[in-house]
Amino acid sequence: MSPVDTQMRREVLEIPVAVKRLLVNGGDDIQRAAHAIRARNPAFLVSVARGSSDHVATYLKYAAELLTGTPMASVGPSIASIYNRQLRLDGSVCLSVSQSGKSPDIVDMTRMARTGGALTIAMTNHPDSPLAEAADHTIDLHAGPELSVAATKTFVNSTVAGLWLLAEWAEDAALCAAIRDLPERLEAAVAVDWSSVQTALGVRNSIYCLGRGPAYAISNEAALKFKETCQIHAESYSSAEVLHGPVSIVDRGFPVIAFAAADEAETALAGVADEIAQKGATVFGTTPILEHATPLPIERTAHPLTDPIALIASFYAMVEQVATARGIDPDAPRHLKKVTETR
Amino acid sequence: MSPVDTQMRREVLEIPVAVKRLLVNGGDDIQRAAHAIRARNPAFLVSVARGSSDHVATYLKYAAELLTGTPMASVGPSIASIYNRQLRLDGSVCLSVSQSGKSPDIVDMTRMARTGGALTIAMTNHPDSPLAEAADHTIDLHAGPELSVAATKTFVNSTVAGLWLLAEWAEDAALCAAIRDLPERLEAAVAVDWSSVQTALGVRNSIYCLGRGPAYAISNEAALKFKETCQIHAESYSSAEVLHGPVSIVDRGFPVIAFAAADEAETALAGVADEIAQKGATVFGTTPILEHATPLPIERTAHPLTDPIALIASFYAMVEQVATARGIDPDAPRHLKKVTETR
Repeated sequence: MSPVDTQMRREVLEIPVAVKRLLVNGGDDIQRAAHAIRARNPAFLVSVARGSSDHVATYLKYAAELLTGTPMASVGPSIASIYNRQLRLDGSVCLSVSQSGKSPDIVDMTRMARTGGALTIAMTNHPDSPLAEAADHTIDLHAGPELSVAATKTFVNSTVAGLWLLAEWAEDAALCAAIRDLPERLEAAVAVDWSSVQTALGVRNSIYCLGRGPAYAISNEAALKFKETCQIHAESYSSAEVLHGPVSIVDRGFPVIAFAAADEAETALAGVADEIAQKGATVFGTTPILEHATPLPIERTAHPLTDPIALIASFYAMVEQVATARGIDPDAPRHLKKVTETR
Repeated sequence: MSPVDTQMRREVLEIPVAVKRLLVNGGDDIQRAAHAIRARNPAFLVSVARGSSDHVATYLKYAAELLTGTPMASVGPSIASIYNRQLRLDGSVCLSVSQSGKSPDIVDMTRMARTGGALTIAMTNHPDSPLAEAADHTIDLHAGPELSVAATKTFVNSTVAGLWLLAEWAEDAALCAAIRDLPERLEAAVAVDWSSVQTALGVRNSIYCLGRGPAYAISNEAALKFKETCQIHAESYSSAEVLHGPVSIVDRGFPVIAFAAADEAETALAGVADEIAQKGATVFGTTPILEHATPLPIERTAHPLTDPIALIASFYAMVEQVATARGIDPDAPRHLKKVTETR
């Protein structure tokens, strides 16, 4: 238990219960939407989201491409809200992700997608929101009220809900079983000890987060949370991109966290983590196969696609400790409020 | 003229000539590919690229969506090279962008796209490369040999070639005229004085670059170049995203550059730039409509979609000066080599 009892910490510890609530109550929404997607047999998918929800969309893009072979395009909401253009989206499915369901640009873009011919599915914690009204189908995230400015349990529930939807569409029984098993695994995941990262961070203010495939989305989310709650300039890169230029800012002791799932990318990601460690950086990785970087304790799950969800739960528990240790209240980040309405 | 005569500087100053060379010699490739795209009438587009070339792809995504209403998905090369999955890409067009045309993951992904049913178009500076061999059509960038590790003239020529392709597909005569006018505008763009940014940077090691719409791609490219050539931790955000968390690391004097074109996003972007300036950051913007942030001198072009190309030319000229002033040789960035081959 943290010496400071923050709302963020309470919500991180609530993650297993929130996922359980989704699993118990969300089935009807998921089945209806999955049935509609199967009927549409989409040529492609589009996603509409911002901030943490956009990291959910990135995760779902990889999951959809790996599970179903259907490409997903992330569409900038500005195409509708600023540029007022209509996309041709016949034969597609649009996933819109928003905790509040209120940001005008997300709602505008979802309306435009529906007009353009897409089957629209809203994933939101507020099934009475304007976003839910704009979409053909709504999936209630059942995360419960989230009071901390930094989204944690809604991120996890959005990820689980979206993955569940894809698993039902793909009729992947092994993945469905792994999803049902998640509350127990997440209970263990929020309890792992990543304090070695906190020690290594010291007073450093720049850090890289790395991932590849679905875990890259988790790396994106981790980097945003470091900024939001700890005022640390963390940036996320694909482990394949980081050697194309970004590695140039890495000096001795530069902290790096590589997020690896137990999937086909694990070896390649570990290789890049080791390579950067050999350049003098202080590199951690969520895989035991590291030679020069330091392995972090991990809770694996029953499927490679659910592993990244356990990783972000472990990360959230750690980043809240980093924030409070730096004397920052993670519930009230500098310059921020909970609902950002963008036009 | 810089006191240090770097290869990067010579290549930045060569940008107008390189674009002229493309305009004179590239027409046949462009017409053939544009004709093939029109015949395909794609439901969607996909892009395959890494690093600076991936910023070209982001730019082309916005341009394609705005000009033709056709959504574009960026596909992670790992789907083919690491996960060995086949995407269903019937009825689509795949644009692969690579200076060298040699990175195995880009070549693998392009082959997979072709197998999946996509019409594949390679944009490369090496029309005899494995990438060109793998694709249905090749567009030679005609950038000439690029010796500096940091890509500059190939970035610009890739952007111009891709935009020209889209303009021909869309049969947009005004945009084609603006493209023909580019060499002259770029001559002026590389000569504008952005030394005020250099002064404001001082010894700062974190900075944000902002954009929205097509200029967001330019912001991505600028942030990568700051890292690559100056060892400055620059990160790019959509001006719509930066207020969702990232703004939390902004303290007094934090440097920010907002890249605005003269398009529908200019007002929104200027508003965010002003808002961050009021939080105490040192904010520059490429638009005269700023109230609290500082306007930079700009060379506008004959079309909103070509404006971002002039902006990156001005930026390149500045960032090379920042590197040499910091005693860094931008031709030989730390830890990097010219061609990164990723699997």
